This record gives sequence, structure tokens and C-alpha cells, in this order.
Amino acid sequence: MVKLRFITAGESHGKGLIGIIEGIPANLNITPEYINIQLRRRQKGYGRGGRMKIEADQVQILSGVRWGKSIGSPISLYIENRDWQNWKQGMSIYEKDKNSILPVVRPRPGHADLAGIIKYNQKDIRNILERSSARETAMRVALGAIAKCMLEYLGVKIGSFVTSVGKVSYDIKTYKLFSKELIELHEYAEKSDLRCPDQNVTEKMKKEIDNAAKKGYSLGGRFVVFAIGMPAGLGSHVHWDRRLDARISQAIISIQAIKAIEIGEGFLLAEMPGCDVMDEIVISEQNSLKALKRKTNFAGGIEGGITNGMPIIVKAAMKPPPTQRRPLKSVDISNFEVIEAAYERSDISAVAAASVVAEAMLAIVIADAFLEKFGGDSMEELKKNISSFLNS
Amino acid sequence: MVKLRFITAGESHGKGLIGIIEGIPANLNITPEYINIQLRRRQKGYGRGGRMKIEADQVQILSGVRWGKSIGSPISLYIENRDWQNWKQGMSIYEKDKNSILPVVRPRPGHADLAGIIKYNQKDIRNILERSSARETAMRVALGAIAKCMLEYLGVKIGSFVTSVGKVSYDIKTYKLFSKELIELHEYAEKSDLRCPDQNVTEKMKKEIDNAAKKGYSLGGRFVVFAIGMPAGLGSHVHWDRRLDARISQAIISIQAIKAIEIGEGFLLAEMPGCDVMDEIVISEQNSLKALKRKTNFAGGIEGGITNGMPIIVKAAMKPPPTQRRPLKSVDISNFEVIEAAYERSDISAVAAASVVAEAMLAIVIADAFLEKFGGDSMEELKKNISSFLNS
Amino acid sequence: MVKLRFITAGESHGKGLIGIIEGIPANLNITPEYINIQLRRRQKGYGRGGRMKIEADQVQILSGVRWGKSIGSPISLYIENRDWQNWKQGMSIYEKDKNSILPVVRPRPGHADLAGIIKYNQKDIRNILERSSARETAMRVALGAIAKCMLEYLGVKIGSFVTSVGKVSYDIKTYKLFSKELIELHEYAEKSDLRCPDQNVTEKMKKEIDNAAKKGYSLGGRFVVFAIGMPAGLGSHVHWDRRLDARISQAIISIQAIKAIEIGEGFLLAEMPGCDVMDEIVISEQNSLKALKRKTNFAGGIEGGITNGMPIIVKAAMKPPPTQRRPLKSVDISNFEVIEAAYERSDISAVAAASVVAEAMLAIVIADAFLEKFGGDSMEELKKNISSFLNS
Amino acid sequence: MVKLRFITAGESHGKGLIGIIEGIPANLNITPEYINIQLRRRQKGYGRGGRMKIEADQVQILSGVRWGKSIGSPISLYIENRDWQNWKQGMSIYEKDKNSILPVVRPRPGHADLAGIIKYNQKDIRNILERSSARETAMRVALGAIAKCMLEYLGVKIGSFVTSVGKVSYDIKTYKLFSKELIELHEYAEKSDLRCPDQNVTEKMKKEIDNAAKKGYSLGGRFVVFAIGMPAGLGSHVHWDRRLDARISQAIISIQAIKAIEIGEGFLLAEMPGCDVMDEIVISEQNSLKALKRKTNFAGGIEGGITNGMPIIVKAAMKPPPTQRRPLKSVDISNFEVIEAAYERSDISAVAAASVVAEAMLAIVIADAFLEKFGGDSMEELKKNISSFLNS
Repeated sequence: MVKLRFITAGESHGKGLIGIIEGIPANLNITPEYINIQLRRRQKGYGRGGRMKIEADQVQILSGVRWGKSIGSPISLYIENRDWQNWKQGMSIYEKDKNSILPVVRPRPGHADLAGIIKYNQKDIRNILERSSARETAMRVALGAIAKCMLEYLGVKIGSFVTSVGKVSYDIKTYKLFSKELIELHEYAEKSDLRCPDQNVTEKMKKEIDNAAKKGYSLGGRFVVFAIGMPAGLGSHVHWDRRLDARISQAIISIQAIKAIEIGEGFLLAEMPGCDVMDEIVISEQNSLKALKRKTNFAGGIEGGITNGMPIIVKAAMKPPPTQRRPLKSVDISNFEVIEAAYERSDISAVAAASVVAEAMLAIVIADAFLEKFGGDSMEELKKNISSFLNS
Repeated sequence: MVKLRFITAGESHGKGLIGIIEGIPANLNITPEYINIQLRRRQKGYGRGGRMKIEADQVQILSGVRWGKSIGSPISLYIENRDWQNWKQGMSIYEKDKNSILPVVRPRPGHADLAGIIKYNQKDIRNILERSSARETAMRVALGAIAKCMLEYLGVKIGSFVTSVGKVSYDIKTYKLFSKELIELHEYAEKSDLRCPDQNVTEKMKKEIDNAAKKGYSLGGRFVVFAIGMPAGLGSHVHWDRRLDARISQAIISIQAIKAIEIGEGFLLAEMPGCDVMDEIVISEQNSLKALKRKTNFAGGIEGGITNGMPIIVKAAMKPPPTQRRPLKSVDISNFEVIEAAYERSDISAVAAASVVAEAMLAIVIADAFLEKFGGDSMEELKKNISSFLNS
Repeated sequence: MVKLRFITAGESHGKGLIGIIEGIPANLNITPEYINIQLRRRQKGYGRGGRMKIEADQVQILSGVRWGKSIGSPISLYIENRDWQNWKQGMSIYEKDKNSILPVVRPRPGHADLAGIIKYNQKDIRNILERSSARETAMRVALGAIAKCMLEYLGVKIGSFVTSVGKVSYDIKTYKLFSKELIELHEYAEKSDLRCPDQNVTEKMKKEIDNAAKKGYSLGGRFVVFAIGMPAGLGSHVHWDRRLDARISQAIISIQAIKAIEIGEGFLLAEMPGCDVMDEIVISEQNSLKALKRKTNFAGGIEGGITNGMPIIVKAAMKPPPTQRRPLKSVDISNFEVIEAAYERSDISAVAAASVVAEAMLAIVIADAFLEKFGGDSMEELKKNISSFLNS
Repeated sequence: MVKLRFITAGESHGKGLIGIIEGIPANLNITPEYINIQLRRRQKGYGRGGRMKIEADQVQILSGVRWGKSIGSPISLYIENRDWQNWKQGMSIYEKDKNSILPVVRPRPGHADLAGIIKYNQKDIRNILERSSARETAMRVALGAIAKCMLEYLGVKIGSFVTSVGKVSYDIKTYKLFSKELIELHEYAEKSDLRCPDQNVTEKMKKEIDNAAKKGYSLGGRFVVFAIGMPAGLGSHVHWDRRLDARISQAIISIQAIKAIEIGEGFLLAEMPGCDVMDEIVISEQNSLKALKRKTNFAGGIEGGITNGMPIIVKAAMKPPPTQRRPLKSVDISNFEVIEAAYERSDISAVAAASVVAEAMLAIVIADAFLEKFGGDSMEELKKNISSFLNS
């Protein structure tokens, strides 16, 4: 990112999560209520572990906002961990509490556990898993909510919907989806326990999850995340690290358990003849470059690393949560005996939550791309620069 | 990237391509011959346009290397464009040559053309396409060759192979592939005109290309790119932008026409039960963390954003080259008439070349991850730090 | 910076100050007590405004430390603002509290006030001054304390002393000062109300401050900040933005009210003949490059952007605090009438505090330079890499 | 820097210097002639070594410019080293030329020589000095010329003048200097062999240099570098690394041999009472924030890290070139015998050249600050955004 940056901090069972985002223009309306709505969206989802009930995350805005508006300073957020009381010694910062709980010594395949203790020279896997946990994504959602506020002011809307859980899928080609259809799918998804736009498929997904729960394994899935209301001209072809699709990929793959990403129709494009998958350029009423249109959106709104004015459409695949009741083979790191991996309370499936996290990451990357192109230290200045560009 | 950085410059029909990589330790053996071998690998491939014959790229090392070794200074490379003679006026830097060739006014769907002229306020699409062209990847391959040299010194090998062209595919599950199998596939690929490890499939791919050529359309495809000899502990789970899989994704998606990426088994993981796709941890002879092994590699060598010691395996999908003989609908930007998109000489398929570019990008990202973790300003210092870590 | 990064947040009269530092290796001993000692050092100093008594800053470590040691995760800190109770509405994040206090409309010359409201499109100067205030430096000191911990583990000590307040100065040539002398000066300074190593001069400085207080104006001053125990080889000559002296300059000048910096003898070097100001290289008992010594330290420990093994010595000049009882001419921004600038409670002189902040910034930059050169994700790994380098 | 970045490459006696600057908007007029004028300004100066005659630098624009204008792509430049013919083997990239010239084994105090070979594990000091040499600044001047072009289009002018050589100084208080006076001083400086605005002082400086030459030592000096036509609002107070004065300091101190910097009146501010050195705010005809004025410029145009609309004024001190005929004590690194340091052809004084390099660095940092605040991918867009801001 170029003009925005953010850092998150906090362990899964520590005191809380902390986040700072720097570079948000002044005079943006921000409320904790709006952020809390996003946090609640992340916590929903059939098949989530017991933790979701504990959480009921509430954000505190610690700085950067005054009388309802950003003032240009870094905005810092805090989300208390609700079960901190039970972990006060186990996760204490003080040496005196050392060994108050047993170390975790059975690395879980699929997690950062083993690689993490090797890298950071640790003996207690808890020192890794507390940070690698997806708990951290709550703060990403909170920070992303601020980016969403900013984008809404600019007429950009971010949304998402789940397209599969395990083998149950809601198949949809995205190259035909324009703003109206995308928003509808998002709104249907908001009513589904699994953020799937189709009620029948949602029911099948729930059964799949029930079945997995019974058998003790977990499930991954796929989702679509999108942005509508995009102008042409964000990102750039001129250098590899200015390409917007590449930046989006880093942001989405950085979400815990996401293992694949497609821009637009992605893998499908690799199969189809070139003549059938390019988004032809068609004329509109006005004779202006910025009014030219496309009939399809195979490219997912980005050509040559630059937005082309069509919706940005990104698909992602999430692996099943590695922690499951049905045990995986592992090795005790304290004595090198063959054992079964540790089991910490976990979700059967977290695709719905991941789709909300992906919205947050997409929002931040796009907000940054707006600021990169248009500058502006207040929302008014930013908006004026955009209008000036669009009307030139 | 953290310790390495590089910038490429140069237009497709300009004087040449220029690249600088900064941060390479001293005392690395570098020769133009080694870089030229990589450049030739990129230029091969059945179905490439006429340009590949013109090119026969040769690198000049302009700085940073003395008497065969890096000296710590920025390393700069130059690759002359062989057909520059024909473009001396058309791509001249001087105002006096203005309008010596006609402007390009018919934007090609699928390229940066239209979005680019909107963004950069241009009237001649040539000012965009000259830089968005995949010609630029020659310099990435040259700079990546230096990263490859560095990795080879450290015992890491980067390779790749093509797994599909259009609908013809060489299906292979990668979760079973260990170093030996990966190297074999790479070596078979080196003997194929299309970098596909299977000779029969290669022949089918060629026919697919011949057929597409006849009909005037282009073809995309898929490939695998990998790294073997990786230690556990590169990348990190602690922050979103330190995750190695996410950095790799940005690097690979940044390659022209790449539209999707999978880490390890990627999309397949989203379908399978969690119990079947985690790479169980098994004991080896030595009782040491760093000697623990895996029986499978669903994760593609990265868990929680950190390398786990298994081969890094990445899959990518490339869209068909958007420029094709069979014309696409577009609009003339000078008069807003409906027309057919411009046709510039182009490849029917470029998957083989893209796989070589992907090797370069993967090499650079991994070389950076080594330097990030182990420091070192000379190759001797770097290597000693690695040994010390591995043996502790 | 390359491997460390930090963000601070928080307004002067907001809830508190928040800071996150990312990139600290695991297994570093960190206690709130150590950080609080540094915070107290910043708060001392004859001539500070009433605020210093209110403050008595106490840090809370919110994340990244467990059982007394860093675990590799981002470390986040919180310092409550003690007078927050009085500002709950005036600095509230909620729109409902809008206009609960009057806006500040009289920009103070010398502050960010006027430039800030122009930049961020504000009408109430409070939205600027709350963040431009030197209150923010408390968090820098807290984060710098962590860097200091890290450096102490590596045998590096950071110190400082004040050399002038207004026209009263403690003149000392630094080119003759080696580790022993520097530490002594620092220790004397610790006993002085103004951090000046000489007791007589301290008394004169106090009188100067008393006099200024009476007359209603403020005073600037100068200080020296240093690092001892430095190995040769940090920073680099190979690129402008890798030069350690340049990075240190950015870090020090970034401190509120610092307007000038010298590396080593700085301005004196511009006057003297070249033959008299180069630090000649002399042999020591061992025949080893790393054992070669210098008889003087005109260069301040950095040649060609690289540490040469001598103490790093930096001098800085601080302007007087712009807020003073004796009023400055300004213009009311609400009605463009000529007025006197606003007066907020302020220090007569803050040089002693600034020297402590400078220690923090120097510590962070040097800690980063160690990590850049030597890598390492745990303190043990970092230290081993350093030893290996020093003994090769 | 945020939106611009540049890398330089090239050794002092290598083939040439290479530079790439990335992020320059499209449609900026750029000619090699303009760049060459800046290169010639750098080469002048009484007391320069013989090399300046060899050089007569000429730039080639290799990419990023077409028909006289930037096109948004990275702009790459090349400056051939004129005496490369004599160094073809000594600085060859090929291993076969190894040992064709003798290694440099006598480190020069004051240079990167000793620290450099320790850091990069070298035995031949040439591998360090070739890059640490001030020869590299020619490329900075060339890249800075592009930034200057950009700023001139925006109404900003960068200039400089020398204020001392050794003990001969042209004393001038800068707090009284406004645009008109600064430009005049710059123009007088352009006519002086030493870039000093006063002809009498110039003559004294020359004598000082003649005297030093005779005695075999070198001389440093001081200069002022400035920018006029600055709007208020560049840089920011909100975070330490967004402060423009701090960024400028890094850029200027990064110039070879620069050891000190002052923003505005710098060290003088540390002595004076606060009531005398703040730039009071005065009303102008228009009732607008942006029309408010200052009567003085003690602050050097930057308050709280933000430009305040006054000229940016920066002063710097340069140490004497460490290479001198009168020898310095050193140690032969091949056998640890006490010797005299190596003597390579060098300048007696290079202050005039350094002032031109400082203009280049200041231009780049300011150009970046404009792009950071105002965005814009073409010069037209950038300019429109600025006008819109200034007129709001």
C-alpha cells in the first residue's frame, strides 16, 4: 500500500486486539456503531465454534476521531477479548506468571505451530498459535470498516457471498454479473446463515456442516468478494508492484486459511478461447472515454493491473480449519513421541466469516488506490479531485 | 519485499529494457551467460509470435559485478531491443519526431489500453501498450536469474512446468510431489516445446495451438512453479504483510495475464474434508524439530504464512493473450466509432514463457525472504547464518 | 527502516496514547517497569509546564509479551492520559458532543496550527494541535525503551546530555569522547535537573529559565545523543536511503521542535582543514580488521553511511517552544481579525525531555540497523549471528 | 518517499551510471538538454580534481519519455563514464580479468573504505570505493533534473548558494530572505566559480583553496538550498515519518560528505528567546487562510512538519574531501603494517557541486510531497488538483 498503512496487534487470548490505521483523510464520519455492525457480520455463520458466543466484539475508538469525524491523525481501535479473565495468568505479560499453565507441545498440522516455533525459537506452541489464530481478523474487519466508510462516501460499495462449503456449491458465473446483480447476491447472502445467496443451497450447506461435525472434521469453501462503483484508472500497468490485482491478491491470500484466488473468471480463462473471454468495448450515449462500457466482465474489472470501470470481482478458496476433533498425526516436541495433534476449540467451517474479512481487506486496498491516484487530505478534497477527473 | 528491491524500465519497442536490483549480498558469482540462458528459456515455446525470433535477448551487466562477483552495489542490467532500428522515430524521446507514426486509437479489450489512456490522460494508446506489454518480463527474468544464482548457492532450486494449454491438460496432483519428483517434472518440461512434462500431452497442446492459430484466436493455460530445498521458518504469521504465501501471490499475479493462483492444492482444499488435507507431522531418525517430516504437501510448503520445510508449490492460470487475429469489438477513441480492436503481432499462447517468468518472480521473493530472516551482506555471512540456524 | 516499523496514535487530551512496534525478535525480556523508567526520564526537567505533574505516565503492555518475554508478535503499548476526565466531551469521539467546547481559532506561529488546518480542511485548530503536540513523544519513548532493551542485550548503550539552554552552554568537543567519557557525561546528566553534565552550568541554565519565565518567553537548546558498543558495518554506502547517518537524521529531525542536526563534529568539519579532521586508523594488538582503532571521532562513528565501530555521536538543536505567555501576532481564522496567538499551558524549555526522546529514536533506528544486517527472529539467533560476524 | 522512488547504480570507474525514477506523471516535458545543463552545473567549481575535465557528462534517456514527454512509465537514464576505456579490465565484470590491477589495501580515513570491506567481506577496497564515491551524485542530479522540470511546471523553483569554504564565509541570515532575494542570491551564485553570491568572497574562497592545494589538504564548506513557490500543506504533523523536514534531512544528509543540516535558522533558534524567532502571522488583502502571510522565515518554511507557504530553506555543512595529498595514517589491510592512506585523484573542495546535488535531492523530495498530497497521473491532473486546493 502507498498512502494507507495499518498494523494490528493482539493475541487470541490476550487482553484484546489493537489496531492503528494511518492515512485516512480528515472529515470522514466514523462511528463505533458502524464498525460494530461489521464485527457482528464476521461473527455470524453456521458451524462456528463456541468462541463466537463469548466474543460479541465491541470496538473502542481510542484516537483519530473527534465529534464523529476523522481529523487526519492515526485512528486506533481496541477490541477487548471477552474471555481475558480466564487467561490473566496464562497470557500474562509478567515473568512471575511463568508456567502458570502447561505449554502446548503437540503441533497441529495445517497451522503455523511447527514452523512458528522453529522460526521464533520457542518451546511453547502457545506463543505462536495465539497470534496465528484467525481471532486477529476481527481487527482487520474493524479497520476495514473505516475504509468502507470512506468508500461509501465515494460511491463505492464492497460486498461478498459464499459460493461453496465443502462439496456443496452454489455455481454462478461471475462474468455476467453487473452492479445490480452483485448487490442482490450480497443482500441475499446477508440473510443466510452461511452468507450463501441461495436459501436451498444454504440448507444443504448446513447439512454438510452437521455431517462434518458429527464425523469430527472441518470444511473449507469458496466465496466471491466484489467492489462496485469503481472508476477506471486505479492501479497501474507501469510496474509490477503497482498492479491493483496483484495487491488485492496479497491482501486476500494474507487472510488466515485462504489458499487460492481468482481475479474475475480466473481459472476458467485459462481454458477458454481468447475470442470468447475478452470484455468487448461498447459505446454509450456520451462520446467520452469514461462512458465506454463492457458487455461482460471476464476480467473482474481489472485489465493490465488497472481498474476498467467494471465491478472488481475476486474469488477465493479457503481450506478447512486445521483443528478438528478427528485427530491428526503429529509429534510431541518435548519428547519426540508420536502423538495426536492438540485440539483447541475451533470452527467446523469459517467461510462466511472469511468472506467478511475479505471485504475488509479489499476495502482497504481499494481505499488506498483511491488515495494514491487522487490524493487529498480531507474527504472533501479527495471527492473534488475524483469529480474533476471523472468530468474531464 | 524487505531487503531486496528492483525496478524495471523500458518500452516494448524502445531502445531496450533496463533493470536494477538492489540488496544482493557481495561475493555472489554472476555471469551474463547464466542470465542469457534464462532469457532463452523465456523466449522458447510453440505458438509464440514472430517477435521471439527477432529478440534473441542478450543481457549486459552494467554495474554491481566485478571480476565475476557481486560487490554489494546495485546491479544494473540492460537488454537491447533488437528491432529498435525500426522504431527510432516512432519511439524517439525527442519532440521533433512527434507524429512520425500514426497513433493507436483502437483499444484492445483485455489489455491495459483503454484504462491506461484514461488514467494517464493520453490520446495515443501506444503510450500505454509499450509498457503494459509482456516484453517487460524479459527484464524480470534477467533480474530473477540473479536471485536464482543466490538461491542455488544456498541449495534452493526453482523450477516449473506447464499443466494446460486451453482445454488440453496434464493433470497431476501436486500434494504427492516431493523434491525428486518436482525436479524430474521440471527436467522433462525443459525438453518440451511447451514446457509440459508429458510428451504426448505436449503434442496435443501443439495441435490445440495450431487449431487456434488457424481460427485466429489465442489460448491461455496453467502451470506449476516450485522451490525445493527450503528451510522451515521463512515468512511469518505475525502480520498480514509478512506472510510469504501472500507475497508470492502478489509477485505471481503481477505477471502480465496471470489471473489466478493457488498455494499448494488451492481450490481442491476448499472441497475436501479437513481430515484428508492436512500434512501430518512424522518423526525422522533425528530427534530434532528441524528434522520432522511430512507425508504429503497439500499446503504447498507454507503454513500460517511460514515455510514448513516442504517444497513451495504454486499454481497459476494465465488468460489467453488478448490480441488475436479474430477481431474483438471496440471503439475508436479518436471519433467514437464502433470498430474492431487493433491487432499487433502477438503470441497464440505464452504459457511456457509465463512459467519461466513465474520462476523469476518466485526466486526474487524467496531470496528476499532468506535475507529478511538471516541477514548477511556477503554470501559467506548469509550462508553461515543459515547453517547456524539449521544446526541449532 | 527496514525490519522494524512502528506507528503511534493518540491526541494530547484524548483518552491516551497508543503505539505498536512490529519486528522485535522473540525472547527479549521486557517489563513495564523498564519502560516506565524511561517515561519518567522524559517527564523531568526544570522549566516544564504544569502538565508534567498531571502526567506521571504509566505504560500498559497490551500484546506481544508473555511471561516477561517478547514472542515475535507486534508489541502494543498504551499510556492513559491522566487528565482525560476533564476532556471527555471536548475530545469525545461522538458527534453528540460537538461544540461542547469552543473551537481554537487563533493559530500560534511556530506550530503546525495554520498549515495544519489548511492541509486538513479544518475550522477548529484543536483538531491539529492535539496531534502535533509533543505529548506524542511519550509513546516514542515507550517504544524506544523496547529498542533499548534489545540493544542492551547486544552490548549497545544509548545516552544523551544537554549542552545548552538558550545562550547558556556547556561547550565540549565531542571528537575526543570515547565510550568511557560519554557514559560519564550521560551519568552526570542523569543527576541534573536539565540533563546537563556540569552542575555549575545547570545552575546557570536554571537561572536563564527563571528569567525567561518571568519575561514570558521560552528557550530552546542543544543536546548530544550517542550510542556506544557499536560494531563496524551497520548502514551502507551503496544507496542513498541505506546510509545510517541519513536515517538517523530523519529520525531526530522528526522530533517536535528539532531544527538542526550534526553527525559527529558537523558544522565544525566545514571549517577545518581536511588533514585535521579525519579519524586516522591505528593498529591494535590483534592483526584483524575489526580490531583496528581510531584516535579521534570527528566523524561521529559513521563514514560513508556505515558505522566504523566508534561511538555514534549526534548533536541536535531545538527551537524554543512556540507557545509563550508573551504573545505573538496572529490572525483569528474565524473572522480574519488581527489578534494575539492562543496560549495553551506549555514548557519554558523542553531540551532535557527532547534529549530523552532523541535517545528513543536513535535506539529504534540502530536496533533496526542491527536486524537489517544480522537478521534473526529470536534474540539468541540475532546474537549468534553478530558473534559469528565479529569473530570472522 | 511515498509516490516517487528512484534507484541509482554504477561504479565510479565502471561503464557508466544508471538511474531509474518511477512515479513521474505523464505529459511532463523532458529533454536531455535540460538534464545536461544540470549535470554541467554539478561539474563546475574551482578546486575540483582533474576528473571533472574527463567527465563532461551527457545523459541518455533510455525509457519513459516519448516525443518529448513522459508517458507514465519508469524513466531510466544512463551516463557513460568517459574514462571507462582505461578501466575495461580493472573494472570488468568478467572473472577472467581478475587481478588485472592491484587491489587497494590502504583504507582512507573519512571514507567508507574500512567499514565497507568489513561489512561486505572484501579484500580489495576498490570494491567499496567505486560505489561510495561522489561520482554517484551525477545520477542524482540527472534524476533530480526531472523532478525540477516537474516542479517548474507547478511554479516551484529550487536554488542554492554556497556560504562558506573552509574558514572563508559569506554570512547571511536567512530568516529575512523571501522569494525575490533567494532567487537573486541563486543567480549571483550561478556566476561564481564557487557558487557564492558575493564576488569578493568568491575570490577569497579561491585563495583559500589555492592555499590548501599548495599545502596538500582539502576543505569543506556550507551552503543554502531552497525552494520557492511552495503552497502550505505539504508534509504532515500526524506521524514522524510524514514530516517533510525530516524527509528532507534524510535526503540531504545522504549526500556524500554532508555532516550537518539546519532547517531555517537551525542552530540559531536554539539560542534565541522564543518571542524573537517565531514567524508571526499577518493578514493580507484577501480574507482567506491561504493568503495569510509571515513577516519572517525563521522556521525555513516548515512548521510541525508541514510547509507553511514560505520558502523552504535548508542549510548544510560538508566535510573536507577525505582524500588529500598530505597523507593520513592508516594500516595496510593485507599485512597490518602502519602506512599512509591511499591517494586517489580528488577535489580540494566540492561544496559548489554538493549544493547542486542538494538541489536535486530537495527537488525529488518536494516533488514527491506534491504527488503525495495532490495525486494525479498526468501533469494536467496534478495541476488541476493543486489549483482546486488553492482556490478552495
